[in-house]
Amino acid sequence: MSEIVATYLIHDFNGNHEKKAESIALGLTVGTWTDLPHLVQKQLEKHKGRVVSVTPLSEDERANSYFNRKVYRSLIKIAYPARNFSNDLPAILTTVFGKLSLDGEIKLIDLDFVGDIQKAFPGPQFGIEGIREKVGVFNRPLVMSIFKGVLGRDLPFHNEQLRQQALGGVDLVKDDEILFDQELTPFFDRIKTGKRILNEVYETTGHRTLYAVNLSGKTFELLDKAEQAAEAGADALLFNVHTYGLDVLQALSEHDRIKLPIMAHPAYSGALASSSFYGIGYPLLLGKLVRLSGADLSLFPSPYGNVALEKTETLAIAEALTKDELAWKKAFPVPSAGIHPGMVPDLIKDFGHDSVINAGGGIHGHPDGAEGGAKAFRSAVEAVLAGKELSEAAAEEETLRKALVLWGGL
Amino acid sequence: MSEIVATYLIHDFNGNHEKKAESIALGLTVGTWTDLPHLVQKQLEKHKGRVVSVTPLSEDERANSYFNRKVYRSLIKIAYPARNFSNDLPAILTTVFGKLSLDGEIKLIDLDFVGDIQKAFPGPQFGIEGIREKVGVFNRPLVMSIFKGVLGRDLPFHNEQLRQQALGGVDLVKDDEILFDQELTPFFDRIKTGKRILNEVYETTGHRTLYAVNLSGKTFELLDKAEQAAEAGADALLFNVHTYGLDVLQALSEHDRIKLPIMAHPAYSGALASSSFYGIGYPLLLGKLVRLSGADLSLFPSPYGNVALEKTETLAIAEALTKDELAWKKAFPVPSAGIHPGMVPDLIKDFGHDSVINAGGGIHGHPDGAEGGAKAFRSAVEAVLAGKELSEAAAEEETLRKALVLWGGL
Repeated sequence: MSEIVATYLIHDFNGNHEKKAESIALGLTVGTWTDLPHLVQKQLEKHKGRVVSVTPLSEDERANSYFNRKVYRSLIKIAYPARNFSNDLPAILTTVFGKLSLDGEIKLIDLDFVGDIQKAFPGPQFGIEGIREKVGVFNRPLVMSIFKGVLGRDLPFHNEQLRQQALGGVDLVKDDEILFDQELTPFFDRIKTGKRILNEVYETTGHRTLYAVNLSGKTFELLDKAEQAAEAGADALLFNVHTYGLDVLQALSEHDRIKLPIMAHPAYSGALASSSFYGIGYPLLLGKLVRLSGADLSLFPSPYGNVALEKTETLAIAEALTKDELAWKKAFPVPSAGIHPGMVPDLIKDFGHDSVINAGGGIHGHPDGAEGGAKAFRSAVEAVLAGKELSEAAAEEETLRKALVLWGGL
Repeated sequence: MSEIVATYLIHDFNGNHEKKAESIALGLTVGTWTDLPHLVQKQLEKHKGRVVSVTPLSEDERANSYFNRKVYRSLIKIAYPARNFSNDLPAILTTVFGKLSLDGEIKLIDLDFVGDIQKAFPGPQFGIEGIREKVGVFNRPLVMSIFKGVLGRDLPFHNEQLRQQALGGVDLVKDDEILFDQELTPFFDRIKTGKRILNEVYETTGHRTLYAVNLSGKTFELLDKAEQAAEAGADALLFNVHTYGLDVLQALSEHDRIKLPIMAHPAYSGALASSSFYGIGYPLLLGKLVRLSGADLSLFPSPYGNVALEKTETLAIAEALTKDELAWKKAFPVPSAGIHPGMVPDLIKDFGHDSVINAGGGIHGHPDGAEGGAKAFRSAVEAVLAGKELSEAAAEEETLRKALVLWGGL
């Protein structure tokens, strides 16, 4: 038997969550039950939703005060037979959280794929191991940086920024997610000139940096565009999956002639995941769902910066990306925003070796420019792996010292 | 100059919303400003976001109590130059609410399209007038009904339900949004047999009913599938747009060889729009955005049923679908859920003649079956248009009397 088990967080004003769970299980599958003739019940039995569990949660004072009455909370698990839907996320999300998303204070927290339906979602094509092979780095967290202030700038500016970041030794550089395909820095020009520059840097430093170009445009042009990007020598794709749809990510990931690592950007995901009462849980959305849709790396707000998630939530995202689950490869967690070299010990403690340390301001704002910023990060990572204090390493590496002076960490 | 003006509802804990607006306008466009050299400022001026207005709102006690501190609220309008993004909604949504959706208590309330960017979003292909021509009904709200309990049932069952609804005189019948393409009632079989049945009914009653079939499956198969649906004689498409993406809806709407009315279903939209603090406003999401993406009809929770929105919100959705705006045709508002014949006077008072009265239980639960339910709705509509009380009309129409006795309204 193949099914999907959905976990919901319910807030409501009457404690009868067993009854509510039953009504969801029926309402989102066969509609009604007790008034159906026995013969029809037999026929529909294999389509009927099933309440797996109802777990009451303790009261939450904030919820009580917001709704100005006693709010009952519970976690409800409901199993939906896979035969009810086609093997695609739009059908699955419509089933488990279509009408239900409109039905009061209910949040979708998790989805478990049981049985054959798993095969419809093969997960990342490359995963952590595949990305590591591409960059030739196996024994440390990767270091990534972001273009900054490139909107309205021309190709030489973009190229030079790429060069500086790569010279400093980052493993990955990603486009700004708001840099689309426009005449100053057209998509294919970015790929081609980027490739040339990264090859030049590689010849100079021996270090291989991958550039993730922002795949954008109309949905039905994306597959051809990504295929041409692969032909043009693109290293990886950045993708604003949440403004397109998870199924579009999956199509990119599964396409025979694309075969590029995909970095899922969290843009727009806050619209789905920010509320405590409604929407989709962050660990499900930015963790499990992007992983099963084929993302090799998933960016999410770090717990340290201005655009911050709770630390427990970011750890749960990372866990969803990396835990052993089904036949899925692991995807790289990329906690982002507010990262500077002084935070590397915390980042590695929190997210482990199998993560990507990603910075924008913490690279470009370095007194020695992006190259210096990148070097400072690489030194900080080496120091932590060698069991050294950053202050000790900073005595030997001037870029790190400057970073720690500027942003703290000495 | 072409630009998009976004309106945001902000809640935060410090009243300096002018500064916050400035930082959004810069952060989502050129990044920084005051520290840029004058020459670069000149170059970037035409890419820079612009604060249009900051309007403080009165305090909201519920927000204060939820956050347990004084919460400052305002509406902020920011203009983004259209040259910053490509002419597609994923790029626009990434720009105006990508990273920003993750940045605390901020909700996207409206988007205005100024100048040439309008041309990229032609709106509905058919609109209210086009749909009216298809059904040949010009002087009253349309009446629509929904299949019920068809999951797990076979094609003869589906066909018979369609026949009963059509015999009662509904103008439109829509698939259940959780009925996908499966072996019991395959997509193309539903279209072909549905067409035969509706033709038979038309020959009997002279009334033309349109059937909206649920277009489902993997994103990149949808265009071909919809084209084949059109060739197979489909009347209209139901589409779970929010599990796919608005740009997919637009592609379906603009496709040369599809040319079918599209009914946008609100499934999953609650995940984006339910919160007061985060996400997208319902009138924007289920009103303006689905209209500009090409939906000819938009379903949304009625203010009357169990799955209910606030009445002001539903009226704002209907307003966004029907008001004169740009060159867009009007789209039909379809307030749904909890509708029975006794509510027709309120529905017409609230949503006007240019709306669709849509029922499921209020059709199928009728003592005389779906045919009786449909007749009761049609009689109720006629009565209201003739300026009669429902009780008066019920004396002449037995199906209406039975409906009013069962659900109220006498």
